[in-house]
Amino acid sequence: MPVGRILCAGLGPGDPGLISVRADRAIRAARHVAYFRKRGRLGQARRIVEGMLAPGAVEWAMEYPVTTELPFDSPAYGAALAAFYDDWAARLAGLADAGHEVVVLCEGDPFLYGSFMHLHSRLQDRAAVEVIPGIPGMTGCWHATGVPITWGDDVLTVLPGTLPEDELVRHMAGADALAVLKTGRNLPRVRRALERAGRLDQAWLVERGTMPGQRVARLAEIEAADCPYFAMVLVHGTGRRPEAPE
Amino acid sequence: MPVGRILCAGLGPGDPGLISVRADRAIRAARHVAYFRKRGRLGQARRIVEGMLAPGAVEWAMEYPVTTELPFDSPAYGAALAAFYDDWAARLAGLADAGHEVVVLCEGDPFLYGSFMHLHSRLQDRAAVEVIPGIPGMTGCWHATGVPITWGDDVLTVLPGTLPEDELVRHMAGADALAVLKTGRNLPRVRRALERAGRLDQAWLVERGTMPGQRVARLAEIEAADCPYFAMVLVHGTGRRPEAPE
Repeated sequence: MPVGRILCAGLGPGDPGLISVRADRAIRAARHVAYFRKRGRLGQARRIVEGMLAPGAVEWAMEYPVTTELPFDSPAYGAALAAFYDDWAARLAGLADAGHEVVVLCEGDPFLYGSFMHLHSRLQDRAAVEVIPGIPGMTGCWHATGVPITWGDDVLTVLPGTLPEDELVRHMAGADALAVLKTGRNLPRVRRALERAGRLDQAWLVERGTMPGQRVARLAEIEAADCPYFAMVLVHGTGRRPEAPE
Repeated sequence: MPVGRILCAGLGPGDPGLISVRADRAIRAARHVAYFRKRGRLGQARRIVEGMLAPGAVEWAMEYPVTTELPFDSPAYGAALAAFYDDWAARLAGLADAGHEVVVLCEGDPFLYGSFMHLHSRLQDRAAVEVIPGIPGMTGCWHATGVPITWGDDVLTVLPGTLPEDELVRHMAGADALAVLKTGRNLPRVRRALERAGRLDQAWLVERGTMPGQRVARLAEIEAADCPYFAMVLVHGTGRRPEAPE
């Protein structure tokens, strides 16, 4: 009997031209393709590979449980998510057992805050799993600004916008370059924290980096009501660089 | 007269299969290819694209000035480097003026501590420049460990190993996940700092991540004399993840 496997393909920041050669090849050849999405949405991962899937490829949309009534950090929400990952890990392992290769699409880099990690940990010792790295979403966003993120001895800190405000302030004040992910509804708190850390004037908001509709703006100039949900906040480092003597 | 340009192609961590589709296409089609290297070496960027260049492609090896007698942080070293970048920016701008497209190879992601940034800043308003992002070297290294680098609310701090020991300790103690770049001769100090921050037991050394000869080892178990020059130190985050209730 043929032995199947699970192949997670990092998609990069959104522009299909930024997918790696190896992931591109795997996606185009795939007979089974799985991806996460919210119920009722096409899903960002699926959107990135539009036009790339082989005719007849079987699609497995892994739809997150609807949990609008549960707080994000409640035990009940965690349990619902755990059951969801358990279920899909079992289904993917079943497909691999039946000899199929399943390509799981994952935005950005799968090992940097990626949802696939929750399947990966559950599939250990149950199926052959390979993960193809991707360009992180934050990397696409700093390219969207057209300015390098770190120079010389700069320290780069990557912060989830979900952290408490005081934690954000502490990290923002202590690093040179910053990438704040998971902003969404946390953006007002992220903005306050940047202001308290004295970094707001240096902060950029990048929406849909490398994708159609990309927008790059100074965070200080954006109205609170106009804050997009899928956006990242960046502060560039300004470290050492060799310049001609004056 | 045709208008040329400078196209910087991020090569990713080292495995040619991890180059983006767009960069791969540009490299294979290039008539002019430039890359940094140390004098007397083939150079890591050139090695990654071995077998990919078109027949007859003109190669421009940008060899760093030999400065063994100068301390890395001395003004004289900075001046020598600045003159080197000035010179190559002028030569590349000249090629673009003559109507050529020059593909500049850059390991990892060009905007994350990349040498190309020093040409990029000098080429503004002198030539058309496009930069193709790449998978950062650190991303290749955390994939080499087979373990995700960040979960949930983890904070990731990216540290140059060139920083003073007390600075390293402060950052290492304050973050969840760590990537320490530019270790090289700084590795003994990086190791002491990890020990002082209470993180040495969690630290991995990754040498030649995603490349032939890749080595992944616990830093605490490596003899000082056996420390490779091109290596990265990683500490994985252990943040929130949905688990089935006990």
